[in-house]
Amino acid sequence: MGEQKKFKARFMPPTRKVRSLKWEAGSARRGQDYLVVEEPLEIRLNGEAVAVTMRTPGQDIALAAGFLFTEGILSEAKQIGSIAHCPNPGKEGEGNVVEVTTSLTAPPAGVGWQRRFYLSSSCGICGRSSLDAVRQALPAAGDLSRFDPELLSTLPERLRRAQEVFSKTGALHAAALFRDDGELETIMEDVGRHNAVDKVIGSRLLEDRIPVEARVLLVSGRLSFEIVQKSLMAGIPALAGISGASSLAVDLARETKMLLVGFLRGPSMQVYSGEERLQKG
Amino acid sequence: MGEQKKFKARFMPPTRKVRSLKWEAGSARRGQDYLVVEEPLEIRLNGEAVAVTMRTPGQDIALAAGFLFTEGILSEAKQIGSIAHCPNPGKEGEGNVVEVTTSLTAPPAGVGWQRRFYLSSSCGICGRSSLDAVRQALPAAGDLSRFDPELLSTLPERLRRAQEVFSKTGALHAAALFRDDGELETIMEDVGRHNAVDKVIGSRLLEDRIPVEARVLLVSGRLSFEIVQKSLMAGIPALAGISGASSLAVDLARETKMLLVGFLRGPSMQVYSGEERLQKG
Repeated sequence: MGEQKKFKARFMPPTRKVRSLKWEAGSARRGQDYLVVEEPLEIRLNGEAVAVTMRTPGQDIALAAGFLFTEGILSEAKQIGSIAHCPNPGKEGEGNVVEVTTSLTAPPAGVGWQRRFYLSSSCGICGRSSLDAVRQALPAAGDLSRFDPELLSTLPERLRRAQEVFSKTGALHAAALFRDDGELETIMEDVGRHNAVDKVIGSRLLEDRIPVEARVLLVSGRLSFEIVQKSLMAGIPALAGISGASSLAVDLARETKMLLVGFLRGPSMQVYSGEERLQKG
Repeated sequence: MGEQKKFKARFMPPTRKVRSLKWEAGSARRGQDYLVVEEPLEIRLNGEAVAVTMRTPGQDIALAAGFLFTEGILSEAKQIGSIAHCPNPGKEGEGNVVEVTTSLTAPPAGVGWQRRFYLSSSCGICGRSSLDAVRQALPAAGDLSRFDPELLSTLPERLRRAQEVFSKTGALHAAALFRDDGELETIMEDVGRHNAVDKVIGSRLLEDRIPVEARVLLVSGRLSFEIVQKSLMAGIPALAGISGASSLAVDLARETKMLLVGFLRGPSMQVYSGEERLQKG
């Protein structure tokens, strides 16, 4: 990578003003309201469409890179030859198609790509292999970093202060990467939780900074299996959420000794996995 | 339909108890916590796997039926020959596979099934057709029912009182169908918003009560394009959410004159579409 010209992005605003009717204690008032923009993004790899995801425009290049990485199709930045918005996708597709080509000098192994294709076409997979299909090959967590619970307590407030679009629309998920000293490094917003996480991970991939060591990923919503899985793919050792965790999310976090914290709300939190990673500062 | 023996369901609990560490103002306490269960459900149609969705066990039959209906693969209850949990899916798939066979006397047209397959395998769709692919063929809204805003105001509280699993785990989405007199008719819970909606719609399909007239669907979360689309497929004339709506959700609701209400919180709400459907009681 390194050549910034390989990453061509087009700007589409993440919010849109609309007229709406506000109903308040029995009386109606006409006004304007900001909506979060939701549009389909098609991700193409070497000319073939891999996925269509409903997303909030912005950081599309990071989203496409992150998606391909967390799905196991790409494993390294150098496997990307070029990544850019498609210049001629037709009228409705304007700004909604990202094309990725793989590098000729460092092509991906192709295993992940086959796997994804298999999962996506969804034919003939049995109960056993469908469980396998959602469980990607995960890298071992070699990162032994620890986190101060007092410091974790301060993160939701830092996230809220940094969430620009949310404050306008009240309808957006965020994912943010914090250093173990509490410094906010990357924040991404999207209508989809998984997209916000893919944007964070994709931006790290494009900077060739994977695995993500000594960082905690904070998400604004629920902690599902998919969010844990994506984080583990990037080697993230700690994941926290404002809301609760699912059974499968906790199982996977325990298997891999990831620190998993739910209901992180000011001074209180619920630690589901990896408590050996907690250390008072 | 009518033969209840065609619908065989297996019971899996929607919550699971785990040990966790509660951190509160600097001190840790070990205890037990309820997690919402998240498991993959594979939906098979005539022996072929159509989709794998991460869901909360419970109402799997309704979920499978609702998914096939809102994706446009099935359009009527009588097209279902049988629908049941797979008896021999292998160890890990136990209770996680639902098999649907189509009726020999009333087979589905097959158009939707081809379409879905196309979308799912995601090959070669261009920017233009990917937008089309997410936008299913929608039935015309012939339902002219109106709703009293004062009555809408009371629905979130009714939903909260009815949400059983949420109160245990704090981590579950709900979708509930209310009559225009405010009576709660159906409530479904799931880790996924779209699954909760598919469960509601599927349960109506299995009772052969589609289109859903003179009802408002209330969802606990955000109003995305997908939720509006699924509701419209079932002919639901009004959709409300506790949280905000996306741009594409509002566009689609306006196109079809659906009543779309966001930020429904006690006496205040934001009306994005279909205000002609509001009528003081």
